[in-house]
Amino acid sequence: MQLLHSQYGKSAVGLLKVFRDGDRQTVREITVSALVSGDFSGAFLAGDNSNTVPTDTIKNTIYALAHDHLDSSGIEPFGLKLAAHFLARYGQFQTVQLQLEEKPWGRMMVDGLPHAHAFQATGDGIRTAVIQARRSHPPDVTGGLQELEILKSTGSGFVGFPRCEFTTLPEATDRIMATRLTASWHFREAATDYPSVASKMREAFIEVFANRYSRAVQETLYQMAELALERVPEVDQISLRLPNLHYFPYDLGRFGIPNDQVIFYPAPNPHGDISATVSR
Amino acid sequence: MQLLHSQYGKSAVGLLKVFRDGDRQTVREITVSALVSGDFSGAFLAGDNSNTVPTDTIKNTIYALAHDHLDSSGIEPFGLKLAAHFLARYGQFQTVQLQLEEKPWGRMMVDGLPHAHAFQATGDGIRTAVIQARRSHPPDVTGGLQELEILKSTGSGFVGFPRCEFTTLPEATDRIMATRLTASWHFREAATDYPSVASKMREAFIEVFANRYSRAVQETLYQMAELALERVPEVDQISLRLPNLHYFPYDLGRFGIPNDQVIFYPAPNPHGDISATVSR
Amino acid sequence: MQLLHSQYGKSAVGLLKVFRDGDRQTVREITVSALVSGDFSGAFLAGDNSNTVPTDTIKNTIYALAHDHLDSSGIEPFGLKLAAHFLARYGQFQTVQLQLEEKPWGRMMVDGLPHAHAFQATGDGIRTAVIQARRSHPPDVTGGLQELEILKSTGSGFVGFPRCEFTTLPEATDRIMATRLTASWHFREAATDYPSVASKMREAFIEVFANRYSRAVQETLYQMAELALERVPEVDQISLRLPNLHYFPYDLGRFGIPNDQVIFYPAPNPHGDISATVSR
Amino acid sequence: MQLLHSQYGKSAVGLLKVFRDGDRQTVREITVSALVSGDFSGAFLAGDNSNTVPTDTIKNTIYALAHDHLDSSGIEPFGLKLAAHFLARYGQFQTVQLQLEEKPWGRMMVDGLPHAHAFQATGDGIRTAVIQARRSHPPDVTGGLQELEILKSTGSGFVGFPRCEFTTLPEATDRIMATRLTASWHFREAATDYPSVASKMREAFIEVFANRYSRAVQETLYQMAELALERVPEVDQISLRLPNLHYFPYDLGRFGIPNDQVIFYPAPNPHGDISATVSR
Repeated sequence: MQLLHSQYGKSAVGLLKVFRDGDRQTVREITVSALVSGDFSGAFLAGDNSNTVPTDTIKNTIYALAHDHLDSSGIEPFGLKLAAHFLARYGQFQTVQLQLEEKPWGRMMVDGLPHAHAFQATGDGIRTAVIQARRSHPPDVTGGLQELEILKSTGSGFVGFPRCEFTTLPEATDRIMATRLTASWHFREAATDYPSVASKMREAFIEVFANRYSRAVQETLYQMAELALERVPEVDQISLRLPNLHYFPYDLGRFGIPNDQVIFYPAPNPHGDISATVSR
Repeated sequence: MQLLHSQYGKSAVGLLKVFRDGDRQTVREITVSALVSGDFSGAFLAGDNSNTVPTDTIKNTIYALAHDHLDSSGIEPFGLKLAAHFLARYGQFQTVQLQLEEKPWGRMMVDGLPHAHAFQATGDGIRTAVIQARRSHPPDVTGGLQELEILKSTGSGFVGFPRCEFTTLPEATDRIMATRLTASWHFREAATDYPSVASKMREAFIEVFANRYSRAVQETLYQMAELALERVPEVDQISLRLPNLHYFPYDLGRFGIPNDQVIFYPAPNPHGDISATVSR
Repeated sequence: MQLLHSQYGKSAVGLLKVFRDGDRQTVREITVSALVSGDFSGAFLAGDNSNTVPTDTIKNTIYALAHDHLDSSGIEPFGLKLAAHFLARYGQFQTVQLQLEEKPWGRMMVDGLPHAHAFQATGDGIRTAVIQARRSHPPDVTGGLQELEILKSTGSGFVGFPRCEFTTLPEATDRIMATRLTASWHFREAATDYPSVASKMREAFIEVFANRYSRAVQETLYQMAELALERVPEVDQISLRLPNLHYFPYDLGRFGIPNDQVIFYPAPNPHGDISATVSR
Repeated sequence: MQLLHSQYGKSAVGLLKVFRDGDRQTVREITVSALVSGDFSGAFLAGDNSNTVPTDTIKNTIYALAHDHLDSSGIEPFGLKLAAHFLARYGQFQTVQLQLEEKPWGRMMVDGLPHAHAFQATGDGIRTAVIQARRSHPPDVTGGLQELEILKSTGSGFVGFPRCEFTTLPEATDRIMATRLTASWHFREAATDYPSVASKMREAFIEVFANRYSRAVQETLYQMAELALERVPEVDQISLRLPNLHYFPYDLGRFGIPNDQVIFYPAPNPHGDISATVSR
């Protein structure tokens, strides 16, 4: 028997950092997962932990480094700092994979003005980042966005598909399109402004979703990625997953009420599942 | 043995309605639970279903009535319509309880402008309503709001509490306060503008949360309810539940880093749980 | 404005206790919520916490008392002990409500034998208890069971129901019946063996569910409660909630395959919702 | 821009099949996700759906084939049948990936006997399978198990690990070990009895977990995989993921109660995360 591959670390490390600038405060709440690999065969084969940095230490490190290194430049630079620390500090780590998520706290509007220290969770999706670092190589940085729930009530159809004995789906030229977007974008090299890239990504995705007629979820996905790649030179590859969260017309004709595309029911399971990666 | 109380119906009936006004469209997505009571002893004691309107019929009715009766006046008027229909249509129903939830779809901003038919889930919380109707009585209407996640990074403390042998909590004059607000407000009689009441409620809650120093979650809760009652004469009673979602300082002093109220960890379980009802 | 009602405390306090009897060990994992009421108007109206026992102290107390008082007599006696402690220790508490849940850890079978110290979560549902205690009154004890998922593939039907313009449900003499049972049983006075009562309750519920033809979920619910009341004299009232988790036949006739009650799809939302309370 | 990779299909297709053998019935409830790839550039680049088999058709196919092909030989053979059908029926599919999950319905015990048609969800974990099929290649079959919650109250420790400035974890020679096991096993070629392999896998995992002292989660993981590989020649590779679900001693010393390893609290977040793949 042989150990082909292994990885260990700490997942779901949550932290909130408060930034103070006079009376004005800002918060960032992130969750970090740090998984490392290297030669840990001693632990696996002989219960020898002399190389095994405890996952509790990994957790403490995340909190400690957040104190000085998490800032407005976002989760990617903090992840890079963490990864560099882990590789420098522990010679037995060969690779470090960090997954970071940031909860979307927005400044609360009170009396029409943004408040100095009160915040509300928004629906702007969870910002994500993945840092893949290995010794003697430049780290690999991927930004992302997930849990963004969007829907359009028109501007979408699905026709011209092949039919067979198991096909019962009617064609539709005007249907509801809804999804919970997951996106990730790979940086060709270290970027200077990660939050700005994330904003441009989101804007491109939203703009395509809202403004262009969708003949297939596939087409919309591709156009989202294409527009984002056009606008963001720092990124060389984008992956998108767009589950097709179906809203089907409820058959009211049975009750003498017109089936006029007014009343739909959400059918979360089963759902369509479309994903692709687009590169330059 | 005797049947003391019973209730049956359909829960989790989800529907989306599309409203069209020229090119501009609006969506409302709601979930309805309809539970009825009456003399159903035949079904319970003898398996006699001759009085038992199928829950499937209850479901169909919700979709059918939504086609003509769900509109911009909100979930409370639609619930009242549904309840009146059930009582009028089925003599065996003595009470009808409707619970309605509305998902916060907001209009998508594209290029800085609200879009005509694209929407995004917001973090503005889920609007709720409960309609309690019984034959020969005016129905009872309660509006509400839940899943509103709010946090302030200062302006909150907890001191002066009693200490005993099991007390280890330190006093705090500047702590983080975070909650997932659940509120309900009872109407003294039918109102004319339910959405406007909901907006005023939310504004009052938010204003107190953001602007007033909190010496106890209890005090903040009371002030929220008090201000809302002052501003909304249609409402005679408000219930609030404010779980105290703790963010505790992570002890960095162990690593030679100052414990300067910068790094906190979220501790969802266990959590404080504070609720109260305030009336005129 | 006046404070009509209030309650506060700590929710979701999780703990695991290990019992050692020579080499044989046993574990109990419970979650406790403790909510108290009394005159806390000082905290609500004036931010005066001098009466407000911190929820953190409530949490510490639960852990501390578990060390000596949680044992094989179950969650009800431990809840009674906790409630008595809270009332005796803090004069400002007028009522104490405890909700306890126990996770179903079962002894692991290894090589066909029960293991001395290894356990596996079972599907036997979560045992619950609610203790309502108020000063100068005997406490009120309710046992319970929830999250018990059961299904029968025959022995259930639904016919003879009224039809109207919104009825599309066909009659069924042989359908699938599935539910996620929630039960609670109220003790007329303190019992001597709570775990035994819980076992008898479960057995009665299961026996009725499995062995008797169900003409309505209502009928089955009533018979479950009736049989349990017959067998357990300590209990004077039983409440049951049986959501009707639908499994509908998938229409295969469209593909030339017989619709012979073989292939069903689960339709979790919407679901029927039937509850009742039966007493002596 | 170019389409690097894409995949689409239907996820979360749930179905229940009833098997009848005289009075004795059996149920299997599974959830299937079917994702396909091939040349769908027409849909992505030009909204041309002429190759795009609707995900609704994929769903119908799963239900239709389940009628004749899902049986007691388990989810792997059914997945193989489905994959072969998809490749044979639709020339545009180059690969088919099926993920199958089976809910653990166990026969209900009534009066000490297994019942003919009543079932209860067990805690035996969810059986899984992944079929990777591509045109002109033998399909790749992986079986699996997940959501198996296991805990041992002794027989586990963690000592001898490296310490640094961020290490605060004490050594432990007797701690609680708990996990929610996820396993997958890859078949070197088509097997004859998939359920039997799954049983042997589970037994090997459980036996190691229960009977051997664990010096590290890593060691236990490796021994689980090693024993399973020794016993099951059909399998050439096993992957395991064992999150370390911490139960930490609650510090009762602060209250004058001995810290004697009796009272623990569950600390689900953050958690350790250990995974590895072991092969022959």
